[in-house]
Amino acid sequence: MLNWEDIFATRSSRMKASEIRELLKLLDRPDIISFAGGIPDPALFPDQEFKKAYADIFSGSAVNAALQYSVSEGYKPLREWLAGEMGKLGIGCTADNVFIVSGSQQGLDYLGKLFLSPGDTALVTWPTYLGALQAFNAYEPAYDQLTLNGNRTPDSYRKVAQEAGGRVKFAYLSVDFANPTGETVDRAGREKLLDLAEELDVAVIEDAAYQSLRYDGEAIPPILALEMARKGGNINATRTIYCGSFSKTLAPGLRVGYIVANADIIRKLVLMKQAADLHSSTINQMAIALVAERGFEAQVKKIKAAYSKRRDAMLEALGKYMPEGVRWTRPEGGMFIWVTLPDGFDGADLLAKAIERKKVAFVPGKAFHADGSGANTFRISFSCADEKTIDEGISRLGALVREEMAA
Amino acid sequence: MLNWEDIFATRSSRMKASEIRELLKLLDRPDIISFAGGIPDPALFPDQEFKKAYADIFSGSAVNAALQYSVSEGYKPLREWLAGEMGKLGIGCTADNVFIVSGSQQGLDYLGKLFLSPGDTALVTWPTYLGALQAFNAYEPAYDQLTLNGNRTPDSYRKVAQEAGGRVKFAYLSVDFANPTGETVDRAGREKLLDLAEELDVAVIEDAAYQSLRYDGEAIPPILALEMARKGGNINATRTIYCGSFSKTLAPGLRVGYIVANADIIRKLVLMKQAADLHSSTINQMAIALVAERGFEAQVKKIKAAYSKRRDAMLEALGKYMPEGVRWTRPEGGMFIWVTLPDGFDGADLLAKAIERKKVAFVPGKAFHADGSGANTFRISFSCADEKTIDEGISRLGALVREEMAA
Repeated sequence: MLNWEDIFATRSSRMKASEIRELLKLLDRPDIISFAGGIPDPALFPDQEFKKAYADIFSGSAVNAALQYSVSEGYKPLREWLAGEMGKLGIGCTADNVFIVSGSQQGLDYLGKLFLSPGDTALVTWPTYLGALQAFNAYEPAYDQLTLNGNRTPDSYRKVAQEAGGRVKFAYLSVDFANPTGETVDRAGREKLLDLAEELDVAVIEDAAYQSLRYDGEAIPPILALEMARKGGNINATRTIYCGSFSKTLAPGLRVGYIVANADIIRKLVLMKQAADLHSSTINQMAIALVAERGFEAQVKKIKAAYSKRRDAMLEALGKYMPEGVRWTRPEGGMFIWVTLPDGFDGADLLAKAIERKKVAFVPGKAFHADGSGANTFRISFSCADEKTIDEGISRLGALVREEMAA
Repeated sequence: MLNWEDIFATRSSRMKASEIRELLKLLDRPDIISFAGGIPDPALFPDQEFKKAYADIFSGSAVNAALQYSVSEGYKPLREWLAGEMGKLGIGCTADNVFIVSGSQQGLDYLGKLFLSPGDTALVTWPTYLGALQAFNAYEPAYDQLTLNGNRTPDSYRKVAQEAGGRVKFAYLSVDFANPTGETVDRAGREKLLDLAEELDVAVIEDAAYQSLRYDGEAIPPILALEMARKGGNINATRTIYCGSFSKTLAPGLRVGYIVANADIIRKLVLMKQAADLHSSTINQMAIALVAERGFEAQVKKIKAAYSKRRDAMLEALGKYMPEGVRWTRPEGGMFIWVTLPDGFDGADLLAKAIERKKVAFVPGKAFHADGSGANTFRISFSCADEKTIDEGISRLGALVREEMAA
């Protein structure tokens, strides 16, 4: 069911097509252990709940509405449910602040389209979510490295952007258990980002795709909540644009995500969507609304219980099998661990060897870096393997790294 | 179920928001007869077939696949079914030539993104599909009037495009029972367009959204079929890009449309979609494939029987109630009739009066003209009203036009 070509093409756009094809031949074998896919475990999908939701739609009075054209801003009961959820996160808002997109990837595309002209600068971390780079690339921006450690002044960002031929238009940041690193931006980092955005007078795009999947540690308020606290709780005075997803919690195949932001931004995005694809699937928005209303919390609890055990297993295995000199992140949630090898290692090269010699796969880290750095890094995902398989796969990877270090 | 704000915003983007709001207040009344919406009659949706399709998906072995991420080019069984359908239209091709989009509106957006840089020229008819103008507008093109009557030389198109600051990039044409005019481009016109596109070396975007809905007259081969006939049946040598839709035949609420073209264009569009929204809804593509495989022809037959009676009723009523000096098209299919009033009439002005005084609605023609002309025209749709209502509504409209002519 996993489509490898897609995953490779998505995750490693810098690999040559011929290289990908060679790898694909090997990956076709069922004996490969893969930590490459950034996808949810289908065994955890609430399929019975969705079955009931679609059946209820077809048995109810809204069946014609479900199959008909609908409004570009999205299905109102879903937007209202989301407004309620946002309230729990410290983001008091109404349905007017919520916009439904066909997956949060579409939200990133629209935000690129809204903000970026060729030569403008987008601030992103090194590494960052590859899908965000792909979405923004269509609008031909320059990238500058967003750092929250105080090494850069607002003026330095302005200057670099000017030299690239435009202005800084936004800072994009995945905040919780980010893809690909698994790391979380702490509260001080979020506040610093807000300071920077205020000084530069630019938008903040807060990618919260994994936010619900926290396994331990204390939840940190979203950047949008922190900004609202600064602005008297008025969401319509904010510059932060919150991008959420049902792909990691309910199911990605329905393509339903959302954006929460000040009503002025939402209005612009709605007009954009009207021209771009009219609206997201009506029936799927209704199905998501039903499943979410009936049992979002229970579903999230189920996923968290499964994924947190897998994360523990992967961290334990890394400790057991990786040699000295290899470092990795310790995520408090999400799906990913980020591994840094000693300098001189090349992740793409290691991947080819890992598949051929050890029958194990991951994603090389270079593709996640807007500047092409990060050759000695890679991403492993624990979302789709059981604990035993995780132990076996990491043991093989550890053995390969040892062999390579000795070579 | 009809969302008026959306329809007005979509169909009449040149109206002021305040004007639209005033009209909306009136339109909220159930006593208004509307010929404005360009939407299919929900009473004709194959809802039982969709109910069974979704139930079958959830009872079968593909349920996990239905809820999971999938490939950007689209669900292969659906692409294969479509390739077979295209063969029947004289377009011999494989699934590699078929790309699934989230409604054909998304196809138009992607084609605008692929071809247009600011200042480039798109050739469109006056009037043309408003949604196409909205999709293309995002890429800031100039428009030039596509005419197939021989009044314009290829050089004249080149020159106008150069003056606008770019080059002609494509000709866009809705071929059968077009929205908004209901008119069909004859075979000679299609061949002329191909000649022009060859001379200009540009793409042809063939919008075939209504092609299946022919009620009488003989089917004319799609432009893509005519081009293939010129090129030895080799689709991969063609420049015509065929945009199809399930929105008028099965249901728009699932957001599933398709593009058929040479494999090189398809590959570029697939990469674009990967960055823009990953893929169209997996489960909806599966449901469309099931419903189409099981009974596409029967469904189309049912719709055609209903719509053709309504078209007949509307043409009869126009003949009965419209005064001398008013002209209208006689569509062989689709959903629309285009009315031309004597010079001096203003469609938007007439709409306001029609709603207030006669409780009947239509879409003023100006919005469909890239150059802002067409003030004395309007579009009426017969898709969503029964024959009796059509007679009553056109009788009211005819009375209004008579009153205005006498005033």
